[in-house]
Amino acid sequence: METQEVLCKHRSIRKFQNKPIPQDTLDSLLEAGIRASNTGNMQIYSIIVSQNSEHKKELCKLHFGQKCVEDAAAVITVCVDLNRFHKWCEVSDAEKSYDNFLWFYTGSIDAAILTQNICIAAENQGLGICYLGTVTYMAKPIAEFLNLPKGVVPVTTIAIGYPDEQPELTPRLPLEAVIHYEKYNDYTSESIRKHYAPFENLPKIKAIVKENEMQNLANVFTQKRYVKKDSLAISKSFLEFLYKQEFMNNN
Amino acid sequence: METQEVLCKHRSIRKFQNKPIPQDTLDSLLEAGIRASNTGNMQIYSIIVSQNSEHKKELCKLHFGQKCVEDAAAVITVCVDLNRFHKWCEVSDAEKSYDNFLWFYTGSIDAAILTQNICIAAENQGLGICYLGTVTYMAKPIAEFLNLPKGVVPVTTIAIGYPDEQPELTPRLPLEAVIHYEKYNDYTSESIRKHYAPFENLPKIKAIVKENEMQNLANVFTQKRYVKKDSLAISKSFLEFLYKQEFMNNN
Repeated sequence: METQEVLCKHRSIRKFQNKPIPQDTLDSLLEAGIRASNTGNMQIYSIIVSQNSEHKKELCKLHFGQKCVEDAAAVITVCVDLNRFHKWCEVSDAEKSYDNFLWFYTGSIDAAILTQNICIAAENQGLGICYLGTVTYMAKPIAEFLNLPKGVVPVTTIAIGYPDEQPELTPRLPLEAVIHYEKYNDYTSESIRKHYAPFENLPKIKAIVKENEMQNLANVFTQKRYVKKDSLAISKSFLEFLYKQEFMNNN
Repeated sequence: METQEVLCKHRSIRKFQNKPIPQDTLDSLLEAGIRASNTGNMQIYSIIVSQNSEHKKELCKLHFGQKCVEDAAAVITVCVDLNRFHKWCEVSDAEKSYDNFLWFYTGSIDAAILTQNICIAAENQGLGICYLGTVTYMAKPIAEFLNLPKGVVPVTTIAIGYPDEQPELTPRLPLEAVIHYEKYNDYTSESIRKHYAPFENLPKIKAIVKENEMQNLANVFTQKRYVKKDSLAISKSFLEFLYKQEFMNNN
């Protein structure tokens, strides 16, 4: 498949064949990952590849029981890792300098970029992937399970394997709804309605609203899918975890 | 070029030809961007495309005078954007629920993934890109310049254009230095030395150490490139900016 097609034909895969990923294929994905841009070429990340069935079962529980985690050929957790860099500083008589919020955030962006390279390399080779946002909700227990030391925080998890389904592409807002030329053009109630109407009028979306017994899609999000109370609780526990992992020193 | 090659042959480009990007090419990059995975298909991002010369000059100043910003055909700033989503909630009589740290972080990861799709699509079409970490250091003034309202924070900036240089690939640590199978295997002083030695012994790296009059590469980072005092100041100002943009409500 042509690269542009690989990029534009992405769909999340949650059903996998019971088939392992050959080591040379896996290596090629990981190699594509670490060739991505990264801040100062410091490589402040680590990649945990879980393929053991028992481990995937445990990770499945930690990821809110999402079946694709257990069924995937591999579960890949990409972490911001200042532990290795600081240990290198230690053996080099250099000061430990990066235990602060800037480097947590910088390393998170690098980790995400790296993960996306893995995903594209994977999809190019006929594999399917699914990102798991639960990695942030459950950062602390996942870190404990994976033995992550201080200085290491899981940023992304992907389930990866050979697809056993071919879902439709998900709809997106039109480009003009999310692109701003030169400067940000703030939205009015009218422009919001205009941008979202085609999306909300899709039969598929209408079915979701009906099924959830809500008046519209926005309320499906706020009342069913991502509820404020949960977001606040996760924000709090995730920030506490950043302190615990020593990313908030002297902030 | 084959996709795996596009992924593995990335080098940052900082010198560009004076040649604009055709609109259909630009559209294809942006389309590849928004086809990336995103949390709940909420598309909580906005993409600012700056091509006007005066704007690029101003952005160049804000990005610490990095010449590639002024010389690029386009400067693309990808933002986490809850402003649009919240405005949609407002017209839909749904509660504003996402003005907290979880959603800032979630949207940042989505923005990074989207940006990487743009980069790969660009490199696939013969364009070159460079990520600018200065977007975080200067988040507040950049946001002011781009008219970003509350609920919007710039996450990544890339300079993009037709390359006028072809730098060598930068070296990376060996895969085994950053990959952990099943669980995190913590590093010892010995394993750190082993992993970093080939890198530190490269003539290119030795030249950097000498040029900086430092004893080794780690000290080049901690004493010259990314100094603790600066990281702490940026951490502080960036967190303050998150409060200002209303991403830290009730945390």
